[in-house]
Amino acid sequence: MTGRDGGAELSPIEPSPVVILVRPQLAENIGSVARAMGNGGLFHLRLVAPRDGWPGERAWRTGSGAHRILDAVQVFDSVAEAVADLHRVFATCPRPRHIIKPVLTARGGAAEVVAIGTRGMKTGVLFGPERAGLDNDDIACADSLIRYDLNPGFMSLNLAQAVMVFGYEWWLARQGELPVRELQTNETRPATKGELDNFMVHLIRECDQSGFLNNPQKRPGMVRNLRHFFQRGEVTRQELQTLHGVVSELVRGRKEKR
Amino acid sequence: MTGRDGGAELSPIEPSPVVILVRPQLAENIGSVARAMGNGGLFHLRLVAPRDGWPGERAWRTGSGAHRILDAVQVFDSVAEAVADLHRVFATCPRPRHIIKPVLTARGGAAEVVAIGTRGMKTGVLFGPERAGLDNDDIACADSLIRYDLNPGFMSLNLAQAVMVFGYEWWLARQGELPVRELQTNETRPATKGELDNFMVHLIRECDQSGFLNNPQKRPGMVRNLRHFFQRGEVTRQELQTLHGVVSELVRGRKEKR
Repeated sequence: MTGRDGGAELSPIEPSPVVILVRPQLAENIGSVARAMGNGGLFHLRLVAPRDGWPGERAWRTGSGAHRILDAVQVFDSVAEAVADLHRVFATCPRPRHIIKPVLTARGGAAEVVAIGTRGMKTGVLFGPERAGLDNDDIACADSLIRYDLNPGFMSLNLAQAVMVFGYEWWLARQGELPVRELQTNETRPATKGELDNFMVHLIRECDQSGFLNNPQKRPGMVRNLRHFFQRGEVTRQELQTLHGVVSELVRGRKEKR
Repeated sequence: MTGRDGGAELSPIEPSPVVILVRPQLAENIGSVARAMGNGGLFHLRLVAPRDGWPGERAWRTGSGAHRILDAVQVFDSVAEAVADLHRVFATCPRPRHIIKPVLTARGGAAEVVAIGTRGMKTGVLFGPERAGLDNDDIACADSLIRYDLNPGFMSLNLAQAVMVFGYEWWLARQGELPVRELQTNETRPATKGELDNFMVHLIRECDQSGFLNNPQKRPGMVRNLRHFFQRGEVTRQELQTLHGVVSELVRGRKEKR
């Protein structure tokens, strides 16, 4: 699933939310987070009290080209300081207890972040440490919670993957209307119905001559079957050419016999 | 973002697509994939020609409790064998060239997978090796492509994160209202990949014998073209039977000549 390293071109897409890792433990996880942020088009990364200090060399190794994000990391002593310049803060939090705040899904949260950004406000999203998650004091710094809609029977969500899902939703939310489906046509184009019909005439003529369609009761159904099949999917011109060749060559021997 | 280890309770949620890792390199990545699968409620994991063999101990370490998924892994020598019992196969693929297949987003693909599953068919999703991605022969085994909608300026997507995004979308798609799709075939059922492969072997053998595939430079591309074409759409068993008949009858004349 990798492609060429596009890390050199990474730059902020504004307005873009700040990802805030609260007390992250391992530098390699911070690097993986940066990589996931790059995938989602996120750029601003802040660390609150990273356990092993900062910078941590291993982050640049797992960052897989997202070095611009890592080079621009800002470090804070507390969550309160890390969110001080932001207008709206979300906390990702699997199961809050004794806390009453609006709870959004990742999709809903991403849409909120985009909507708030268009009003000129700065947003941030808190992610807790690898094992413990955010504590109540951290969550108190947030306006709303984001709870991921995932298998409740297996809650062990990797930090970088939590960021990935948010980044993915943010990228989609920015784009608004989503193309659900498109046809990939690089070098050839789908055949027209007329071109397809030419092939069907060719195929059925040869099937008739070979005796395959000899049974008059069965013939209409079999022809229909063949038409249905070749109609389905989208046949390209190039494929039709190949199929013409297949039919011609398969019957060549019989014709030569005559 | 972690919670308690719920791995012991992991079990298949049917109908559930098969995740197929093609030539994965590192056991720890396979473990991370299993963990992501657990988050998304996926269970069935197949490996095609894992570079370092299988089982790889490190997978159970990074799997973070998803040991049931890892214990149930199936290993295959080829993609064709890994998909032989499936009805519909998707390939995750960042930028295909020279290939025409339907391309879906992760969200659209997950919705398709759910819709197909409700019709009693088995689906699978191919993920390529860490560096290279899927090659053209791998992609030829798929019906449709899934291309992730993510930052095109930073394509380096970690394998487990690719699986995570798909699993996340699958989990959400399962919960949504299912689009009721008309079943076009009430009297026959879609062919499995293995049945389709039998036909391809038949067709290509006859094409070889007729001399149609004589040019060794062109042969691989032409075979791939044919495979691409017959993969598309949903071939039914009845249609396959008809197609077998067509090929056999078209060549009968040539054989009788001998």
